[in-house]
Amino acid sequence: MNLLLFSDRDRGDSGLLRIAGPRLQHLLQVHGKAAGESLRVGEINGMTGSATIVSIDRQAAVLDPVLTTPPPDKLPLTLVVALPRPKMLRRILRTVAELGVAELHLVNTYRVEKSFWQTPVLAAATIRHYLLEGLEQSRDTVLPPVHCHRRFKPFVEDMLPGLAEGRKALLAHPGDHPPCPRGISGPALLAIGPEGGFIPYEVEKLQAAGCEPVSLGPRILRVETAVTALLGRLF
Amino acid sequence: MNLLLFSDRDRGDSGLLRIAGPRLQHLLQVHGKAAGESLRVGEINGMTGSATIVSIDRQAAVLDPVLTTPPPDKLPLTLVVALPRPKMLRRILRTVAELGVAELHLVNTYRVEKSFWQTPVLAAATIRHYLLEGLEQSRDTVLPPVHCHRRFKPFVEDMLPGLAEGRKALLAHPGDHPPCPRGISGPALLAIGPEGGFIPYEVEKLQAAGCEPVSLGPRILRVETAVTALLGRLF
Repeated sequence: MNLLLFSDRDRGDSGLLRIAGPRLQHLLQVHGKAAGESLRVGEINGMTGSATIVSIDRQAAVLDPVLTTPPPDKLPLTLVVALPRPKMLRRILRTVAELGVAELHLVNTYRVEKSFWQTPVLAAATIRHYLLEGLEQSRDTVLPPVHCHRRFKPFVEDMLPGLAEGRKALLAHPGDHPPCPRGISGPALLAIGPEGGFIPYEVEKLQAAGCEPVSLGPRILRVETAVTALLGRLF
Repeated sequence: MNLLLFSDRDRGDSGLLRIAGPRLQHLLQVHGKAAGESLRVGEINGMTGSATIVSIDRQAAVLDPVLTTPPPDKLPLTLVVALPRPKMLRRILRTVAELGVAELHLVNTYRVEKSFWQTPVLAAATIRHYLLEGLEQSRDTVLPPVHCHRRFKPFVEDMLPGLAEGRKALLAHPGDHPPCPRGISGPALLAIGPEGGFIPYEVEKLQAAGCEPVSLGPRILRVETAVTALLGRLF
């Protein structure tokens, strides 16, 4: 934990923070923090800074925060990913928050197994949990919006053209396409398919919505690896 | 599994392969393969191609391979990573093989916990297991060499200058350094520190051995995320 994130619920009338539960355990066990020491903190969707530990015991830590620094800028990226299996979804959520993706859309496609939509990972509180883990890693505070689209056609026909407008919209797809561009400066949208890829009908629809197919080379990467490698390349 | 990898031990005198154990379970359960069907196969450290299933039951699958295609080229990269915690090490091994890193050096540094060197993940058979998982993902067959260096100073003084010679040698390090270059064409060496980073003495020694510090931006990334993002950017 490179940053302890807190919300309004942790703040008392005095302005001091009262931290209990897993975050307290982490402070005690991993960092071995004691009263008088300080640590980096951030208010969810707000500023970051440091906090002095006023008191700490097995019940709670009381912290006095001073928030001075805005969180790092987000990448100007809207990411569209075919819903992956739950284990991969957890990692994607962490990675998206860690890398500073501005907005995530999880989409159904032909090769997404129907059962993936039943996973408890998609509960709002669970999505938030994994996003917070990613934000803590990279000292960010701003939760990226995550949208779920259980029907491909309405998403790609009615919503995607608007999302892609004014952005460089790319579709990472195996095959004989131009290589993914490097070091772009403006806003972008990137669509990544499921294991096994988009089917030809889906590729057509994505292209009709303004996405340009690009290749990431001859290797077939896991979705999480492809997301991270493409973002490293794009920005 | 995008590629079923096999070795000499799977091959009988007839040239047919006899596959049992976890790979057989995967063929039956995940792919639902039956006799007469074919699948992609690759010989460890050799060629790839396809194999027809001659017979398949709960004991074994017998495959008739035809190997025609070389594996994808490796990235011309020597990766030097401070030994991460075991859970991360497993993922790094998979990712390194998946992305096609040519060679991996795991190094001790001041901030590497001593206990990490005791992990069973460092057993040769276990390293091989995780590398094979990464190779199967990206349809590669060639196991990258993995070297362990339990003492930083002899590694950085006696070995690193030779590894860096004739390569663009980079040190990914937080701070006010030039950004990591993009799209390099020649061979490279990349050194990545532990959680918490290299200490100043280590940075000095790495620089003396020819490594140039580069920055990856304001975010602190997990080691695995940093590796993948940097490789996406470099190549």
